[in-house]
Amino acid sequence: MIIVLRPDATQKQVNHLVEKIKKLGLKPWVSRGVERTIVGVIGEEDVIRVQPLEVYPGVEKVLQILKPYKLASRDFKKEDSIVNVGGLKVGGKRLIVMAGPCSVENEKLLIDIAKKVKKAGATMLRGGAFKPRTSPYAFQGLGLQGLKYLAEAKKETGLKIVTELMDIRELDVILKYCDLIQIGARNMQNFNLLKEVGKTKKPVLLKRGMANTIKELLMSAEYILSEGNFNVILCERGIRTFEDATRFTLDVAAIPVIKNLSHLPVIIDPSHATGKWGLVGPCAKAGIAAGADGLIIEVHPKPEEAFSDGEQSLIPSNFEKLMKELKKVAVSVGRSI
Amino acid sequence: MIIVLRPDATQKQVNHLVEKIKKLGLKPWVSRGVERTIVGVIGEEDVIRVQPLEVYPGVEKVLQILKPYKLASRDFKKEDSIVNVGGLKVGGKRLIVMAGPCSVENEKLLIDIAKKVKKAGATMLRGGAFKPRTSPYAFQGLGLQGLKYLAEAKKETGLKIVTELMDIRELDVILKYCDLIQIGARNMQNFNLLKEVGKTKKPVLLKRGMANTIKELLMSAEYILSEGNFNVILCERGIRTFEDATRFTLDVAAIPVIKNLSHLPVIIDPSHATGKWGLVGPCAKAGIAAGADGLIIEVHPKPEEAFSDGEQSLIPSNFEKLMKELKKVAVSVGRSI
Amino acid sequence: MIIVLRPDATQKQVNHLVEKIKKLGLKPWVSRGVERTIVGVIGEEDVIRVQPLEVYPGVEKVLQILKPYKLASRDFKKEDSIVNVGGLKVGGKRLIVMAGPCSVENEKLLIDIAKKVKKAGATMLRGGAFKPRTSPYAFQGLGLQGLKYLAEAKKETGLKIVTELMDIRELDVILKYCDLIQIGARNMQNFNLLKEVGKTKKPVLLKRGMANTIKELLMSAEYILSEGNFNVILCERGIRTFEDATRFTLDVAAIPVIKNLSHLPVIIDPSHATGKWGLVGPCAKAGIAAGADGLIIEVHPKPEEAFSDGEQSLIPSNFEKLMKELKKVAVSVGRSI
Amino acid sequence: MIIVLRPDATQKQVNHLVEKIKKLGLKPWVSRGVERTIVGVIGEEDVIRVQPLEVYPGVEKVLQILKPYKLASRDFKKEDSIVNVGGLKVGGKRLIVMAGPCSVENEKLLIDIAKKVKKAGATMLRGGAFKPRTSPYAFQGLGLQGLKYLAEAKKETGLKIVTELMDIRELDVILKYCDLIQIGARNMQNFNLLKEVGKTKKPVLLKRGMANTIKELLMSAEYILSEGNFNVILCERGIRTFEDATRFTLDVAAIPVIKNLSHLPVIIDPSHATGKWGLVGPCAKAGIAAGADGLIIEVHPKPEEAFSDGEQSLIPSNFEKLMKELKKVAVSVGRSI
Repeated sequence: MIIVLRPDATQKQVNHLVEKIKKLGLKPWVSRGVERTIVGVIGEEDVIRVQPLEVYPGVEKVLQILKPYKLASRDFKKEDSIVNVGGLKVGGKRLIVMAGPCSVENEKLLIDIAKKVKKAGATMLRGGAFKPRTSPYAFQGLGLQGLKYLAEAKKETGLKIVTELMDIRELDVILKYCDLIQIGARNMQNFNLLKEVGKTKKPVLLKRGMANTIKELLMSAEYILSEGNFNVILCERGIRTFEDATRFTLDVAAIPVIKNLSHLPVIIDPSHATGKWGLVGPCAKAGIAAGADGLIIEVHPKPEEAFSDGEQSLIPSNFEKLMKELKKVAVSVGRSI
Repeated sequence: MIIVLRPDATQKQVNHLVEKIKKLGLKPWVSRGVERTIVGVIGEEDVIRVQPLEVYPGVEKVLQILKPYKLASRDFKKEDSIVNVGGLKVGGKRLIVMAGPCSVENEKLLIDIAKKVKKAGATMLRGGAFKPRTSPYAFQGLGLQGLKYLAEAKKETGLKIVTELMDIRELDVILKYCDLIQIGARNMQNFNLLKEVGKTKKPVLLKRGMANTIKELLMSAEYILSEGNFNVILCERGIRTFEDATRFTLDVAAIPVIKNLSHLPVIIDPSHATGKWGLVGPCAKAGIAAGADGLIIEVHPKPEEAFSDGEQSLIPSNFEKLMKELKKVAVSVGRSI
Repeated sequence: MIIVLRPDATQKQVNHLVEKIKKLGLKPWVSRGVERTIVGVIGEEDVIRVQPLEVYPGVEKVLQILKPYKLASRDFKKEDSIVNVGGLKVGGKRLIVMAGPCSVENEKLLIDIAKKVKKAGATMLRGGAFKPRTSPYAFQGLGLQGLKYLAEAKKETGLKIVTELMDIRELDVILKYCDLIQIGARNMQNFNLLKEVGKTKKPVLLKRGMANTIKELLMSAEYILSEGNFNVILCERGIRTFEDATRFTLDVAAIPVIKNLSHLPVIIDPSHATGKWGLVGPCAKAGIAAGADGLIIEVHPKPEEAFSDGEQSLIPSNFEKLMKELKKVAVSVGRSI
Repeated sequence: MIIVLRPDATQKQVNHLVEKIKKLGLKPWVSRGVERTIVGVIGEEDVIRVQPLEVYPGVEKVLQILKPYKLASRDFKKEDSIVNVGGLKVGGKRLIVMAGPCSVENEKLLIDIAKKVKKAGATMLRGGAFKPRTSPYAFQGLGLQGLKYLAEAKKETGLKIVTELMDIRELDVILKYCDLIQIGARNMQNFNLLKEVGKTKKPVLLKRGMANTIKELLMSAEYILSEGNFNVILCERGIRTFEDATRFTLDVAAIPVIKNLSHLPVIIDPSHATGKWGLVGPCAKAGIAAGADGLIIEVHPKPEEAFSDGEQSLIPSNFEKLMKELKKVAVSVGRSI
């Protein structure tokens, strides 16, 4: 950690700071430049990071040297992590495609979709039983019944199940029915929820919050890892910007950035990122070309009648066509689907 | 609702849409312009809002006419709502100032701060017992013990207590100890939490999410109101933008915007919005000048030793000085503190 | 255009609005819904768009139906435009790669880079002679001398030249030396500059402003087109967001969005979008996979000694390697380089 | 400047960096921490700031210690600058209010507005003769004729004139007719324009770009100051964010931030920041309460017929009423109007 002092900082202020650092068991050093004096700290930055050094008299600003996450860091683990989701390996050469409806609506429809996405090459089935909706008047999901339909679809097709956990009270039931627990964008900083899924061994799909930096995403992953669960898959799903032609702005550069900073696998969600089915294909291809380990895509046979997110759902025939195109892009970057 | 068709929309597509609208029990009308045909819908917009009309063939875009919230709307209630927090009226001519430490750290310190902020003119004491922290390695709050210290401080000073609820499992204990439940920015779209506080009658301080629009803030308020709890106070606490000179960007215009759209009281949090104690005063004054109904401000006697957010905490003497200045600004806009 | 009235709008206010619309030579129609009355306008929206209808008494909001640009619109021209840059076709099946240093530094170096990027497959040479720099103390470009070096490099290699125009006073000299005039992000809304390049027939590379919407980019293109110059190539180069891991956020979805809205070709600039050479490759691939018509990439043999933007420049051997990878991605989406 | 090395940086890489620093005439020092080695640089940071140190092998990141602007900095000049605009002092205890129409439309109307805003307490008249418009089809200003009307209004009322310069070719004529040259938000980084106004002694009103940081605003001011013109007034006019309830987001905290960093006066433009006349009053008050040195406000007697920006213009009677309220707020923070 580097502490930059104000041009008018007094010797007394420097001493006060140096003593504080020593009291924390760390080793300070002082460097006097032409225009500024700076104080550096040698040792575990964690101890001092939580100190409000910026309020010390004479301090102008504090610069952090080390990353605030550890277990999620590439420094901690050099090689890519491969997360095992019920036998499927996420993070390896082969890309994983998760597909299905936004919400689980009824058993027949779900099984129909499951069969079609499986035929097209998906290996996991997505579907919300508990739904976070902006409006209290919108469809809130089928709840437990929805989970049972997912289980049925799994039995019929062998697809692994990913579904969202919104509420700690529903953890047990979600654990029972799914292979991969989704933590949605709105819960990326629901720290108690993160701790609870961290205490299980179940794989977790952690979606980036719409206003969260990549660093914060890795901090939230750290919450899960630090409880002992290393089975974390990250998901870029668009961030909020001033551009209103799309629902969110897909941050495709986040993929190589995360790959540099962390060993965890990362997938993208082109459906939520764009909010428009016509943009899902180009963005899915972009994600794979940029190095993503997989995709999560919304598919619905009758988007006109979908209970939620119909605008961004592909119909099965378009999904099938897209999968063929995606396979070519995957091969072009040395991967497969 | 207005549905704009594509220039190449066919008559068959128009008919398909018109039939759908009729089937929902609404009345469509069609207007053919020079360049576009548009279809309007007369009747309850709620029924149709949740339909994914944008995926209908021939549809270019859908424009909403009505607001998606009702109970929170100024249309629903013309006059300003006044929320009663343990006898204190929030939303009236007199402004409410909530002050105290970011985290409750120990009893002695808390009572000391409480006495000082009361003397300066605050009528509510803030302090976190359960803390949402970006890092799993940061101080997570004293929990129940913290709530007990808050109760003690209340007994000593008579200040009303506001503290954050992060987890549904802690609702009962929070209800027991506080006068005003804070829902933090990171939980503004934790819809299950909103429903639960909606089922109580306890006043709620709902903070705007860092990436949420004013419309979404009002939708989240609607979650609480629609469960029967009308005691909601909104809080603008800064939004996330590209500017990095401050922790967040205080959206001071949100105050008159909310006052136009809603009857609910709104306060501002200049401490979190700026992240720097030296900016708290100017922004607090700006908030009052813009019409806010109150403030929530962090105060700590030794920011250097604060367990969290020391950078943005005022020391009691500065808070006292600021309160004197704030009183003048309040009077200048026809209010009092 | 749709004008939504306030719930309390009077008949007199409706009449006032209706008369105004008639006076403009347009045809109004009025629709009374349960909760709102709306007034529609049939006819050329351009006439009424510039009227401040929102200040009319009784008006709540104004919704536009038509796009504010015409010549740049896909409605105006269904098929993709192909821009001819000195014989090179931009916008067709074959992708165009422009490469070269951020700034022209000296003749020998420039020619050396030109030869290397040509060998790797680039067909245009980029290089700034006039440089927009955030700091007045940074290198401002070689000016005319830089243009002469570019001409020399063109003579040696046959590569077409793209260079930035910052100042109307330099238009003539830029016209003389370049094949494609670049309008930089900071000048996207320098409307007089747009008009001047619109009066020439020289192809223009129009870069998106860092805070401009896609709609505004198309409006700026409209400035050029409306002066008679249809040779416009658009460029997505990253927008400003809260994320600070990259210099800007590459909006990869802008490519299919622009392709839907406009007939103009669009390329991407992964160097400026990311600001880091290690991210250029993944983002270049993403751009091609998403449907871009080309790329503009910074290449410098000694980034350590570059006068500007060394951080984001590829060394020639890395560029050569990337080009091989890009060819595969291009083929996977039915294009070639 | 602090250079943080990667954990795997070799001694050779450290030496390479150290030599480079020495070659620049600066003094390096090396500090080896537990997890990272860092290299500091003592001496003029300007010399090294423009070096692309991040591409040096072994370098992880580069942290700047000093501000990249000098003349605009509070370090350079401790006391507040007072800019003399034709006898009016901007930056002192008395606040300056500039008011008038968005565009100059005709002489009679302009003189009428001028008289009314003067009566209400404004001391400067604003009005655009050359207008930057997003659409090529929108009114582009009266040009020279508009300047002549402004001169006439000045003769009649004694109000000082502020008007926008968009094009270097118009500098001479603008210099002749105005007292304060406005550089609009879209030209904040039109560096050649900044240099040219820097070469004059005429006071400059520099508006913040909609996507520019405060640091960049000060860098643009530095362009003007470094050419010898110290008569610069800054203007916060709203930045672009995801919030769409207002045209831009007024960054009210920018006022105290700028006051800390710089000695230059700063005013706010609540008309453009909000885009809605009903929000101008609350935001104007907020700006004054936060410490602004003045305001620039749009006033038009018939907003319904304004050629531009009618939505955000106050009618004279509302402006007069607002001025009375503003005076009270000014007094409450120790200022006057």
